Amino acid sequence: MTSSEYRRCPVTGRTVVLAPRRAERPMELRHAEPHHRNRVSGGHCPFCPGSEAETPPELFAIRDEAGWQLRVVPNKFPAVDPKSGAFGFHEVLIECSEHFASPTDLSNAQFANIFTAYRERLLHHAADPRIASVSVFKNVGAEAGASLAHLHSQLVALPFVPEPLQQELAATDCRHCGGHDPTRVVAESPHFIAVCPYAPRFAYEMWVLPKDHRPRFETICEVEELAALMKQILTALDRVLNFPAYNWVLHTAPRGDFPYFHWRFEVFPRLSRVAGFEWGSGVFINDVFPERAARELRDAILRGQ
Amino acid sequence: MTSSEYRRCPVTGRTVVLAPRRAERPMELRHAEPHHRNRVSGGHCPFCPGSEAETPPELFAIRDEAGWQLRVVPNKFPAVDPKSGAFGFHEVLIECSEHFASPTDLSNAQFANIFTAYRERLLHHAADPRIASVSVFKNVGAEAGASLAHLHSQLVALPFVPEPLQQELAATDCRHCGGHDPTRVVAESPHFIAVCPYAPRFAYEMWVLPKDHRPRFETICEVEELAALMKQILTALDRVLNFPAYNWVLHTAPRGDFPYFHWRFEVFPRLSRVAGFEWGSGVFINDVFPERAARELRDAILRGQ
Repeated sequence: MTSSEYRRCPVTGRTVVLAPRRAERPMELRHAEPHHRNRVSGGHCPFCPGSEAETPPELFAIRDEAGWQLRVVPNKFPAVDPKSGAFGFHEVLIECSEHFASPTDLSNAQFANIFTAYRERLLHHAADPRIASVSVFKNVGAEAGASLAHLHSQLVALPFVPEPLQQELAATDCRHCGGHDPTRVVAESPHFIAVCPYAPRFAYEMWVLPKDHRPRFETICEVEELAALMKQILTALDRVLNFPAYNWVLHTAPRGDFPYFHWRFEVFPRLSRVAGFEWGSGVFINDVFPERAARELRDAILRGQ
Repeated sequence: MTSSEYRRCPVTGRTVVLAPRRAERPMELRHAEPHHRNRVSGGHCPFCPGSEAETPPELFAIRDEAGWQLRVVPNKFPAVDPKSGAFGFHEVLIECSEHFASPTDLSNAQFANIFTAYRERLLHHAADPRIASVSVFKNVGAEAGASLAHLHSQLVALPFVPEPLQQELAATDCRHCGGHDPTRVVAESPHFIAVCPYAPRFAYEMWVLPKDHRPRFETICEVEELAALMKQILTALDRVLNFPAYNWVLHTAPRGDFPYFHWRFEVFPRLSRVAGFEWGSGVFINDVFPERAARELRDAILRGQ
């Protein structure tokens, strides 16, 4: 059994404890099943075709001859709102017209639509001088915080830069451009790479980033290539962890000039409850070394080919 | 309906969004029930009397003529360990000999034992120059990260000061000693006060702190008084939220001279999943204003009298 180890993330500055022995502890209390399949109710879905009138008016859409393929609408239950005391914009990106609950049911072309929509909405908010930063994220499965099954992402545009991002922006060199340890690489394509980060907060956490230095996601041209890579690694994640609940979040440079920032997606399964130690200290205990997670994910990709 | 609002915590520096409208959103996906009752299996318990040989050797105990009342032992599945690459100490405080799963089943005297044990173990680690900071915390219910039902706390002694605590230590005045807004006070006793903080990350979050300025928990004399207050507010929490899963964490000054630090307990129910926005941005969305939470908790105390 590998010994425990402290690691400090060179990008975020966060310290984690990698503690494989924790995985052996007995679990008397029954925990929620952290999977995202078989959770779809048969009830009415406000995101399905035919329910368009139930969402606020469309902000952006991708259409073909069959109808809409992706829609972006204001969140009907917004956390932030241009008319409230918490100024901002909270949008929902309905990612497909089918009532899919699992991202790997999407085609590569549908994944590309998602990234096209991210780019267009980021460009839209970049033109609004009141907005300082934009969070784009996705909750897959109830355990990851999703309330509706029909695949969707969310976007929150804020008039300030959150503290953790401010800390990353203070860096005076790029921590991603020095190369990647091959033992932590999961997959790559000509312009992108997926790695398990050096000091992950969560077991099987992956980061996806451009190989070239790019501060802003919205400059992306290769949406199809990113789509294929993302589908490949999420399929591997579903194989290794049996369709886990997970989040993905996009970290992209806020308004201003941040030449050393390098955009990335973080993808992190929600296998266990974050507990008192993490909330109190900010230090996360992760019972799977990223080198092991990367090996298992690489093997799953090989098995699938 | 109250409008949304941004608030920045004067103690932690964290920004939250108070967004009551979020509570209205439909929940199609079935979420785990965030309660801590009725989760006790009938199986074998390694923390019950008779199983003492299953834990590593005792570090501290409180005994009376009937036997042990509280035991502190090394965690059998430690995250940190003096013999591993992640140096530190990880201890379990078994809080009662009864197989209780709900803290409010404890008597005031049993609560006082917990705080006595916290003090003694903090004093023990304060004497070890290799230890820089100590986290003491408690996970109640599976949704709060507990793996065993039998009531217990944990202590993690670290050779460094975690980043979020370092940020708090940089303060040049005490943010607790300026008085407390009465609309956010839940309960008080001669030396302690329980409040809902100005910018809580979680709905119904409470902080318990000494009225006088005290950097270190281990200087406490009034354990019985703190016990009575803590039991009072946790009973109110159980009434308002039907025995929620929750964490409590103790924030106390690390090794060194930090005159402006003021110790506190944070108690926070785990009613909903933390989602992509929070993990990505560090900004928490809370759908209950602390002024409303404090009023409901005060009313629950009055109803119980």
